[in-house]
Amino acid sequence: MNNYHGKRVLVTGGLGFIGSNLAIRLVRNGAKVTIVDSRVPGCGANLFNIAPVASDVDVIEACVGDVEKFTAPLKEADVVFNLAGEISHSRSMEDPERDLYLNTVTQLRFLLACRVHCAGARILYASTRQVYGKPEYLPVDENHRVQPIDFNGVHKCAATQYHLLLARRGDLDCRVLRLSNVYGPRMALHLPQQGFLGVYICRALNREPIVVYGAGTQLRDPVHVDDVVGAFLSAGSAPDLKSRVFNIGGPHPITLREIAATAARLSARAGEQSPIHELPFPDHLLRMDIGSYFSDPARIERELGSIPQVEFEDGLRDTLSYYRKHGGHYLGLAKQPEPPAATRLAYQAIAR
Amino acid sequence: MNNYHGKRVLVTGGLGFIGSNLAIRLVRNGAKVTIVDSRVPGCGANLFNIAPVASDVDVIEACVGDVEKFTAPLKEADVVFNLAGEISHSRSMEDPERDLYLNTVTQLRFLLACRVHCAGARILYASTRQVYGKPEYLPVDENHRVQPIDFNGVHKCAATQYHLLLARRGDLDCRVLRLSNVYGPRMALHLPQQGFLGVYICRALNREPIVVYGAGTQLRDPVHVDDVVGAFLSAGSAPDLKSRVFNIGGPHPITLREIAATAARLSARAGEQSPIHELPFPDHLLRMDIGSYFSDPARIERELGSIPQVEFEDGLRDTLSYYRKHGGHYLGLAKQPEPPAATRLAYQAIAR
Repeated sequence: MNNYHGKRVLVTGGLGFIGSNLAIRLVRNGAKVTIVDSRVPGCGANLFNIAPVASDVDVIEACVGDVEKFTAPLKEADVVFNLAGEISHSRSMEDPERDLYLNTVTQLRFLLACRVHCAGARILYASTRQVYGKPEYLPVDENHRVQPIDFNGVHKCAATQYHLLLARRGDLDCRVLRLSNVYGPRMALHLPQQGFLGVYICRALNREPIVVYGAGTQLRDPVHVDDVVGAFLSAGSAPDLKSRVFNIGGPHPITLREIAATAARLSARAGEQSPIHELPFPDHLLRMDIGSYFSDPARIERELGSIPQVEFEDGLRDTLSYYRKHGGHYLGLAKQPEPPAATRLAYQAIAR
Repeated sequence: MNNYHGKRVLVTGGLGFIGSNLAIRLVRNGAKVTIVDSRVPGCGANLFNIAPVASDVDVIEACVGDVEKFTAPLKEADVVFNLAGEISHSRSMEDPERDLYLNTVTQLRFLLACRVHCAGARILYASTRQVYGKPEYLPVDENHRVQPIDFNGVHKCAATQYHLLLARRGDLDCRVLRLSNVYGPRMALHLPQQGFLGVYICRALNREPIVVYGAGTQLRDPVHVDDVVGAFLSAGSAPDLKSRVFNIGGPHPITLREIAATAARLSARAGEQSPIHELPFPDHLLRMDIGSYFSDPARIERELGSIPQVEFEDGLRDTLSYYRKHGGHYLGLAKQPEPPAATRLAYQAIAR
């Protein structure tokens, strides 16, 4: 997988969890990488994430919608990995307009600028399994109905549709990956709203109780970030994929209870480990629960040859080891700042 | 169909084409009607539309997102017909942020306010067949994949998802109608971007040439506004429909060529009638073309007993007759004003 040597690559959201892992791999593959990241509080950007390649990448601090701040690298880009966005489901329910701005408004502007400046580039967009909502069948393939159950899912869905409609019109070459629960080094562990895996990992690092709501029999297919990076690289180097959507999940579905048990087991240090606490499902979470989810790997295997390699236990061990070494750069960060006043989008006319 | 006697009903977009026809019928059925309409230029609001019931309805000039301007009637509403929005596909391609604001941002705010002020009301949302994009099979049922081909479709889809997710969460009682090509009295004929039926009707009124692009063999199922109003009234009076989606189209699919021929035939006055001009499909329209579309009426017939009654030829005759009498209030309006500078959505924190 080294089709990236000498390629000019733009990574939006490149200081975040997945974006930084991708940027590091790209640099190691010989790509010329420019990162665009707005460092919006709460979205997981962390300069330490790119420490291994800090001298080899350009970092532009800009919202992905403020294209005038990075027109030059955009014009030169051969490939764009578009990972900017907010991923928190629960925060989207608290401040939906913030989520709308970060996931939809800015993506619309970014794509319209791509149409002007880099119509020939390949654009890879990081969407989410969340757009499917509660699965109607398993495994979930790419034709599954889109039926989001939170605002984040609606806004990621709209941004996905922007990519796809511009690709179908022949304006851009966009491909979309719908990611399952991703974990691994460089997750924003200090942000409790970024998903249950991050919470479990935090708890395991501190040997604090790991909570399972309800019976914990729901299935998930956690996917290690290295496998996600591999899938992005494959999708970005394959020709003739315009407007194609791929689901990417982990190698096996496992229950939330098994995930919790693995985290508890791997938490063990000096004879002490995280206990597991079973609690009734709180109503506000139950209403966002999707039951079981796991991805159908058929399309991504067949068309990209992309097969997840990292077993959950191995991946989690690797992740815990990363944070035991570098945790100060994550857990040492200030706890999530007080949420600002709610967002409101104003409507203004501007000169074109 | 008179479950509306004495009911307090809010109609958003009630000065527009469908909203005004609905408001008139509601008043005649004894409902207490409040109209909320922002009169945004280009969206079809026309005070003349409600002339027959002008003294019987309250009209509040407000954007549907500025809920503080109509909190009192919102709190009292038994039923909300939520028809506010922009419908122009082509205009959405010219100024996507304007469309995003008018169809998505304002709807999000409106629904969040409904959750606070009228959680017990029934909410009926006017969505569009446009969200399906290019049909993968015919007739198109409600389970057809959502795959919009223009920004208007993406934004109406997002607003639809807001309604459905809030209904599935149990926060609101929302039902959604996806409308096919609607025609009839009170269309905004002075706005050329509101769809081909309006353009044909204008041409027929003036006995000007009616243009058919390409072979004209694509099917559509134009539905008369009286049938759409009937479907809304049925959907608003049925119990236990939370989060249900219904397609509504006309009684029969007919080709664009037949539609044009009917319009030309009915245009005849004093021995003169519109000629039909056949032109090659312009590229910018071809890229937005969806081929044939017609709705599957099975669900709406079975669950609401709603069956379209108006044959296209009868409906078009009725429509032309309305405009021959009242055309000065439509065609006499200024032509579409110059489009303002492009819209830009700003991001501001507000105190809650």
